Amino acid sequence: MRVNSLVANLATPPVPEVQRWAKAYDGDLGPVIDLSQAVPGYPPHPDLLAWLAEAAGSAACAGYGPIEGEAPLRHAYASHQAELFGADLAAANVHITSGCNQAFVTAAMTVAGAGDSLLLTNPCYFNHETTLAMLGIGVRYVSCTAANGFLPEPEAVAAAIGDDIRALALVSPNNPTGAVYPPDLLSELFDLCDRRGIWLILDETYRDFLLPGEGPPHGLFSRRGWENTFISLYSFSKSFCIPGHRLGAVTAGEGIVGHVAGIMDNLQICAPRAPQVAVTRGLPALTGWREANRREIAARADVLRDVMAAAPGWRLDAVGAYFAFARHPFSGKDSREVAEALARKAGVLTIPGGFFGAGQDDYLRIAFANADADGLHRFADRLTRFSL
Amino acid sequence: MRVNSLVANLATPPVPEVQRWAKAYDGDLGPVIDLSQAVPGYPPHPDLLAWLAEAAGSAACAGYGPIEGEAPLRHAYASHQAELFGADLAAANVHITSGCNQAFVTAAMTVAGAGDSLLLTNPCYFNHETTLAMLGIGVRYVSCTAANGFLPEPEAVAAAIGDDIRALALVSPNNPTGAVYPPDLLSELFDLCDRRGIWLILDETYRDFLLPGEGPPHGLFSRRGWENTFISLYSFSKSFCIPGHRLGAVTAGEGIVGHVAGIMDNLQICAPRAPQVAVTRGLPALTGWREANRREIAARADVLRDVMAAAPGWRLDAVGAYFAFARHPFSGKDSREVAEALARKAGVLTIPGGFFGAGQDDYLRIAFANADADGLHRFADRLTRFSL
Repeated sequence: MRVNSLVANLATPPVPEVQRWAKAYDGDLGPVIDLSQAVPGYPPHPDLLAWLAEAAGSAACAGYGPIEGEAPLRHAYASHQAELFGADLAAANVHITSGCNQAFVTAAMTVAGAGDSLLLTNPCYFNHETTLAMLGIGVRYVSCTAANGFLPEPEAVAAAIGDDIRALALVSPNNPTGAVYPPDLLSELFDLCDRRGIWLILDETYRDFLLPGEGPPHGLFSRRGWENTFISLYSFSKSFCIPGHRLGAVTAGEGIVGHVAGIMDNLQICAPRAPQVAVTRGLPALTGWREANRREIAARADVLRDVMAAAPGWRLDAVGAYFAFARHPFSGKDSREVAEALARKAGVLTIPGGFFGAGQDDYLRIAFANADADGLHRFADRLTRFSL
Repeated sequence: MRVNSLVANLATPPVPEVQRWAKAYDGDLGPVIDLSQAVPGYPPHPDLLAWLAEAAGSAACAGYGPIEGEAPLRHAYASHQAELFGADLAAANVHITSGCNQAFVTAAMTVAGAGDSLLLTNPCYFNHETTLAMLGIGVRYVSCTAANGFLPEPEAVAAAIGDDIRALALVSPNNPTGAVYPPDLLSELFDLCDRRGIWLILDETYRDFLLPGEGPPHGLFSRRGWENTFISLYSFSKSFCIPGHRLGAVTAGEGIVGHVAGIMDNLQICAPRAPQVAVTRGLPALTGWREANRREIAARADVLRDVMAAAPGWRLDAVGAYFAFARHPFSGKDSREVAEALARKAGVLTIPGGFFGAGQDDYLRIAFANADADGLHRFADRLTRFSL
């Protein structure tokens, strides 16, 4: 019987594929070091686990909640952002979703339908690509090169905005490269999108892992009329270490929040309630803990830089808030072949650069935040001994 | 800035709209009686709440889970269905989703894309309609009349299958009418779909509220090659009283499960884990409790029949496993006007028949399972005194 060709042609989900490779590893060098899927290598705060338990065990959280999300969480997250960005944001600007992938789906569907296109970077986060593909939304790319720190050049973006483009979708801090987009660049891209009549969708999943003390990640929420151009996406999964509870958010103008609610009602009525109630408590209460994690992960980035410098032939072309994009020494080889061999022979899981776009086969994505300093040393040791 | 017209044109989500009407009710007749959204009028079993708390509070459930769902739940639900249907079903036939709306979205997207169409009944569940609308999937309808117990006639279905139709999507026990589709009818429709090369998608959200002792709901899982024609959708929300935790399932051939996983990975990676772990324990352990609820809701249907017989001018044209479709005495009036007046003046929330399709304005949908016998008596009392 016939199936939708857009769905039939979807690539196999990459993370499970990579994780299967580890099964062939014999364990000779010690336990698997998993630097594939982005999962912080420490557990959630015990208070958050207690709040999750309390909420999940309550009859109150068992019933349906508001489509847009629990009012207290929308309020708490709006306040959090208002403070972070020094901007005027209210609960009405927030829609809670089941994770940031769902935030992206709802934002993309709000601005584009089958036959329209979105502009992504190359490399890009593969789920953005497959999400658009399954919806029949076209994808065009702006190349980001190592020479430019994997940042998109505004001229290249301008040149790529054709009549079919409805939005420019970016990820900062970037997945897969780790590149942090400077506020000035984001501001310039905002202006460009505004001028050309397209939306700027910014996935800020890794925002909480920016280096401390560097000022707000961007000033877009303070731009006049930002609601008509800018849509921000976020995940509570990473900074609260709760990806299994599925919680994310869209921050946008009230009109967009209304459209997202229309989509969410169809996708799943509302995000699960218990994690919303728990995170409402955690957002103000666990600020110090999150700050400590941010510093820990910044320290891991430093460790990674050191240990990679000692791995012959390997080069860190980008390292940022959560990920690094490492150039492997086997130029000309398919990155899948390199990553698979690294998994099977050395028990190190990374994601092949080729999964993030054409021409990225010289790279592997390293989710370095998953491992502590000791794990990163063992990782570099295995890289040093590794040959194809 | 431009938004996707398919999304901009979506109807406002009906349930919040209906619930807003109640705010104008002055409380003179006592508390609001909410027979709008389907939510069982009793809390979850205390053991289930304890298991939910235990799972949500564990670090193990905080990490990402498998896209297709937790293996133990897939296994437990497959066994449950194997027993219920007397059929050979395995974990590989099950994909866990965040509720049954998401099961429908993933199933619909698997079989159809923008430009294709699905065949629904009229009346139909409004979220099926809006889901397809936002995806650019066309909708055609088969009329179901009170004279035929709101069941679709196979001849009418056959006549409505044009070249663009990819699936017939049904709901049994039906939402909104409550009609229970007999196994023979489902078998005949399966044959028809098979012959005409389209999928049969059956939403069985209310399956656990079928009257006890009537045999399996259908024999479709025992039909040879069922995997090439049949997709079943289910919700754990209703029978376990946990809609706020968002848990549903697709049961289909392994190939379809693989396609659904590709879509789910984009929509939200995986369903939330804690409720999966808790329901895995509840599926076998709470069979007796669910059975008691089934009997209780069947008893409520009997009460509803009695009390409605005493409400002058009102007529139950269908009453089934969870819902009743009641003909109001104000023929010619817009059902929205009737339902809104009933909410504002009498504090009774129902959903206007017109929300479920063209030509349904003589009806209101009554989610009678939400109220106990006492509540249903008060409901009928308010109906009797009510005038437009």
